[in-house]
Amino acid sequence: MGLRIGVLTAGGDCPGLNAVIRGVVRTANSCYDATVVGFQDGWNGLVNNLRVQLYDNESIDKILGQGGTILGTGRMNPYELESRLDDIKATLADNEIDAVIPIGGDGTLRGGRWLMENGINVVGVPKTIDNDVANTDYTFGFDTAVSIATDAIDRLHTTAESHQRVMLVEVMGRNAGWIALQAGMAGGAHMVVIPEVPFDVNHIAKLMERRFQMGESYAICVVAEGALPKEGTMEMRSGGIDKFGHEIYTGVAQQLGDELRSRLNDRDIRTTVLGHIQRGGTPTAFDRVLGTRFGVNAVHAVAEGDFGKVVAVRNDRIERISLDDAVGHSKKVPMDRYKEMEALFG
Amino acid sequence: MGLRIGVLTAGGDCPGLNAVIRGVVRTANSCYDATVVGFQDGWNGLVNNLRVQLYDNESIDKILGQGGTILGTGRMNPYELESRLDDIKATLADNEIDAVIPIGGDGTLRGGRWLMENGINVVGVPKTIDNDVANTDYTFGFDTAVSIATDAIDRLHTTAESHQRVMLVEVMGRNAGWIALQAGMAGGAHMVVIPEVPFDVNHIAKLMERRFQMGESYAICVVAEGALPKEGTMEMRSGGIDKFGHEIYTGVAQQLGDELRSRLNDRDIRTTVLGHIQRGGTPTAFDRVLGTRFGVNAVHAVAEGDFGKVVAVRNDRIERISLDDAVGHSKKVPMDRYKEMEALFG
Amino acid sequence: MGLRIGVLTAGGDCPGLNAVIRGVVRTANSCYDATVVGFQDGWNGLVNNLRVQLYDNESIDKILGQGGTILGTGRMNPYELESRLDDIKATLADNEIDAVIPIGGDGTLRGGRWLMENGINVVGVPKTIDNDVANTDYTFGFDTAVSIATDAIDRLHTTAESHQRVMLVEVMGRNAGWIALQAGMAGGAHMVVIPEVPFDVNHIAKLMERRFQMGESYAICVVAEGALPKEGTMEMRSGGIDKFGHEIYTGVAQQLGDELRSRLNDRDIRTTVLGHIQRGGTPTAFDRVLGTRFGVNAVHAVAEGDFGKVVAVRNDRIERISLDDAVGHSKKVPMDRYKEMEALFG
Amino acid sequence: MGLRIGVLTAGGDCPGLNAVIRGVVRTANSCYDATVVGFQDGWNGLVNNLRVQLYDNESIDKILGQGGTILGTGRMNPYELESRLDDIKATLADNEIDAVIPIGGDGTLRGGRWLMENGINVVGVPKTIDNDVANTDYTFGFDTAVSIATDAIDRLHTTAESHQRVMLVEVMGRNAGWIALQAGMAGGAHMVVIPEVPFDVNHIAKLMERRFQMGESYAICVVAEGALPKEGTMEMRSGGIDKFGHEIYTGVAQQLGDELRSRLNDRDIRTTVLGHIQRGGTPTAFDRVLGTRFGVNAVHAVAEGDFGKVVAVRNDRIERISLDDAVGHSKKVPMDRYKEMEALFG
Repeated sequence: MGLRIGVLTAGGDCPGLNAVIRGVVRTANSCYDATVVGFQDGWNGLVNNLRVQLYDNESIDKILGQGGTILGTGRMNPYELESRLDDIKATLADNEIDAVIPIGGDGTLRGGRWLMENGINVVGVPKTIDNDVANTDYTFGFDTAVSIATDAIDRLHTTAESHQRVMLVEVMGRNAGWIALQAGMAGGAHMVVIPEVPFDVNHIAKLMERRFQMGESYAICVVAEGALPKEGTMEMRSGGIDKFGHEIYTGVAQQLGDELRSRLNDRDIRTTVLGHIQRGGTPTAFDRVLGTRFGVNAVHAVAEGDFGKVVAVRNDRIERISLDDAVGHSKKVPMDRYKEMEALFG
Repeated sequence: MGLRIGVLTAGGDCPGLNAVIRGVVRTANSCYDATVVGFQDGWNGLVNNLRVQLYDNESIDKILGQGGTILGTGRMNPYELESRLDDIKATLADNEIDAVIPIGGDGTLRGGRWLMENGINVVGVPKTIDNDVANTDYTFGFDTAVSIATDAIDRLHTTAESHQRVMLVEVMGRNAGWIALQAGMAGGAHMVVIPEVPFDVNHIAKLMERRFQMGESYAICVVAEGALPKEGTMEMRSGGIDKFGHEIYTGVAQQLGDELRSRLNDRDIRTTVLGHIQRGGTPTAFDRVLGTRFGVNAVHAVAEGDFGKVVAVRNDRIERISLDDAVGHSKKVPMDRYKEMEALFG
Repeated sequence: MGLRIGVLTAGGDCPGLNAVIRGVVRTANSCYDATVVGFQDGWNGLVNNLRVQLYDNESIDKILGQGGTILGTGRMNPYELESRLDDIKATLADNEIDAVIPIGGDGTLRGGRWLMENGINVVGVPKTIDNDVANTDYTFGFDTAVSIATDAIDRLHTTAESHQRVMLVEVMGRNAGWIALQAGMAGGAHMVVIPEVPFDVNHIAKLMERRFQMGESYAICVVAEGALPKEGTMEMRSGGIDKFGHEIYTGVAQQLGDELRSRLNDRDIRTTVLGHIQRGGTPTAFDRVLGTRFGVNAVHAVAEGDFGKVVAVRNDRIERISLDDAVGHSKKVPMDRYKEMEALFG
Repeated sequence: MGLRIGVLTAGGDCPGLNAVIRGVVRTANSCYDATVVGFQDGWNGLVNNLRVQLYDNESIDKILGQGGTILGTGRMNPYELESRLDDIKATLADNEIDAVIPIGGDGTLRGGRWLMENGINVVGVPKTIDNDVANTDYTFGFDTAVSIATDAIDRLHTTAESHQRVMLVEVMGRNAGWIALQAGMAGGAHMVVIPEVPFDVNHIAKLMERRFQMGESYAICVVAEGALPKEGTMEMRSGGIDKFGHEIYTGVAQQLGDELRSRLNDRDIRTTVLGHIQRGGTPTAFDRVLGTRFGVNAVHAVAEGDFGKVVAVRNDRIERISLDDAVGHSKKVPMDRYKEMEALFG
């Protein structure tokens, strides 16, 4: 009997998930005559044996350009997951699965590592719109999010200019500022605020004043949702406590705008929060290619028995890194990269 | 000496303004050997003689696809405007202007009517992203706003579905629900809330419950920013008082979401406010054509001495209506049109 | 038992077909508790009883933004169709169909009229990307084709300019020049050639010479595929004979380019044929709305027993016109509309 | 007196050129208080002292999203260029230029190397839509070309499917198949033909037959313009002789289609040549960022006196490679990369 591969998608929505699934199915079929079993709604499908067989036909081709995931997604608490090892083993036995390809973020890949430790063959596919996985140049979904944010910034220019406004645009990025940096650079923003560099509202106000004194009529500032002020420079309103007991801050762009208003007193300051539109819908060509290549190469790794790995892209070539090198190492915007953008400020 | 035409753009940003300006300039030059003088920053340019001569060359061609307005825009209080008649007459005399083409919304066209009453030749071009001008099938900018909102709704579907959410999307439309209706229909929203039909939060909750009971996993509801609850069904928080002394309500989608949350208690309800991205940037092909045709035909009207008119489109043909028929008659979504969308609810 | 409605799509691909189908299904279900039976591959499905029941659920919602038609399409020779009346009646009886909604072009609507003459209830939905149906302001698919062509023309500008070229862009439109006119205007073309106005290559060359003498560096000319030269001004190479025995001319842009080359001897002249990309893929918001409204209102007509009609849009309102007023009356670009574009030439 | 930098763009149009120019100007001003002098129409501007000073203001910001190049471009024969060294030196002296940043393809960078050999300070920026520069992961313009081609392929799917056609899509790529490969993968093509792998028409026909036998109804094949048949398998019609005396072959997709037609005798086979639309218009976010970073870092190299270098991107970081490593080393699609796509065939 041929190889049988399980696949699941977990965590938040991310453009390119279906491209990975299609890449897995087509490669499994055309190169290895293997069967792919999809598990629904993330780990839940593996725990509860909710499955769908994925055939290699025209309908699998049609998902390439679709947002979302045909397998559904879900989140599962790691404690709960680890309490269900027997159920997972039962599902795998029942479906005669040789290896599992979990597609997901840091938590999902940790789950994959735990499966490996428990004797289950795993090849992971990293997924994050935030682009903050270590040891890969890019993750799929990121280019799409940047493109959507850039389109929005393009449109804000003409309105900001005709109304002579300061426009603050809040984009995704709780722990890393990649989307803000990239979309800010692509959209010709005059300033970018990211989590890696605590901001000083007085400094921002000063840069804007200088801009207006040089005769410019408006300003656009891109703010990553996870940006925070430099210690002691500005009070943030708390948005509650997360599951780890840490305080959450939301609405940073709004709060920054309120502070700027008192410093730039005759300026019309507006905030736009791009929100959910950044993570859904059809992926860009770049993300479709990256997702597809991840899917194709994850199957090759499975077929070669090269388990405990995660696919990654470096120098535009697909590589395999160990699960250990992928989880727990968040990739931050390095200072030299931020300085490239800073050179364009004002 | 040839005909000399003044042109200005007033009020909020709207995709297609530059298409009108280009249409005016090219037609004036190629059909009538006329000269076009642009006045900057709305009425302000006419009052203070801030002008720019508009030549018919490659640079005027390049503005067709650009958002914003190369003339700048501005708002002027009607009382102030009417106190400056002498300045306006001086500007017109100084520039030997035979007729003025003001491009703007209701207030601007009222200004145009007042100029006519004071012996100045005017042909108006109606401008509103909200599509609520009477006696024209469409206004430019509307199709662009609808397209942007539709793109956003398309993207929200996959995220709403994978996370099984209720998603409320607030779009522009303070007095009329055209954008919400059109984008809701184009984006496959499951419900639409517009100013013309006061909403009942209990009814909306009931429709959503029914939807979920039929096995659907998520819902998208498009809300026009000017929608209000049916008298006595829900308390709205006031957002201040406008210049006419009326209370303003902002954040209707957020407030509706809060109310729904208490009625759909296990649902994840999220709000996205599209905001300023709806009114800037490059116009759609439809709006470029409509703006261009308005510009071309406004010049024909001037050349024929057919003053006191506003250009409009009916049955895909350009017509001229009187300034009186254009101002003060807001076009609301008619009930039969709303019912077309209501048939698709759920 | 409730109303049972048959629906089919015939003729060439056209963005918005799925929006019509969805509009039909949702309205039938939510307003009339009716059942919709889809027939596959155009008339063929009706003749051979190839059917698919269309349920009102999330999957019908998902087709709104998809190009193509979930029912498939096909062409059937009218003689063959008319020889199969008994089979059609058998199919309708077998499925207990009360009325048929054929969605298609002139030939399909003629088929619908013939069905009516044979005692079968019909409400037609007109479909043509070319926008040349009489008595409706627009048909769905047209706005999408224009948008695609406009995007292409936008991109050709920068290349034509940097290489100082004459660029000829051939777009769809065998009998009417609507796409060329609209995309030419939206894309800022310097000239447009349409079937309604036979062209004179010497005149075009002269216009271009004048343009270059005025210092412009490049030119873009949009050519409808069905454009033909003025009698006696240029020899066209025949492209064969059509089914009615008429000569077909293809490659008009290429041939016009060859002729221009000999008249503008130091110019780099290039041709781009947009071809099939104009009629596929996701519809614009405008076309989704128009298609949906056609579908919704076709069902209302059926439910009211108002047969022998075709849905149409005039003044942005849906109307019903008789099948006789819809077929055999091609809508050409009127001279005043062409002159609006001609004012922008050069 | 501050640093003075010359910049020019040469060769074919490429989205992202203006992003480079803007990056150069902003960085020169904000980081080094340097002056940037633009030379017009490629080398021609340097030879003939055609210059434009580039100021750092809002108008330089606006070019970021525009296609083409504000400096114009041009091609100059290397023999002619080398005969004009004295003129170039005079131009540089006249403008007190400290270093030149030529932005262009292989020929332009060779010109840069020759300038270095003659005592002129140079930092090059590589430019090719084809992505075939060695030692850089990507070049700007490529992602835009791929995105445009992918959009076109997306649209061709629905038409090919509804008409059950074989669709051949010819894309750019005379020497390397990067665009075909990437757009084919992103667009879900069923086959890709590239210059690196000579094709066998019988093999392609066989793959298509197999596809149809498995019940699929249509096929899309992406063909790079520079693809050639395997020796002895198919006669290509010559398209003339190039400047190096080599035969040129054009219309490969058309010719391949003609051959396939005789082998797949009941299939409707169509060809679409995307042509010039692939290289013009607004760049994607990815290309805007890459172009900007190239511009920013070229100025840093100049300021550091690190001449004789070319900027490149590896692992998403900007590096500098020697001019020798950049010119004359064309980057081909490696076999393992082609095999990733081949796994998806059929």
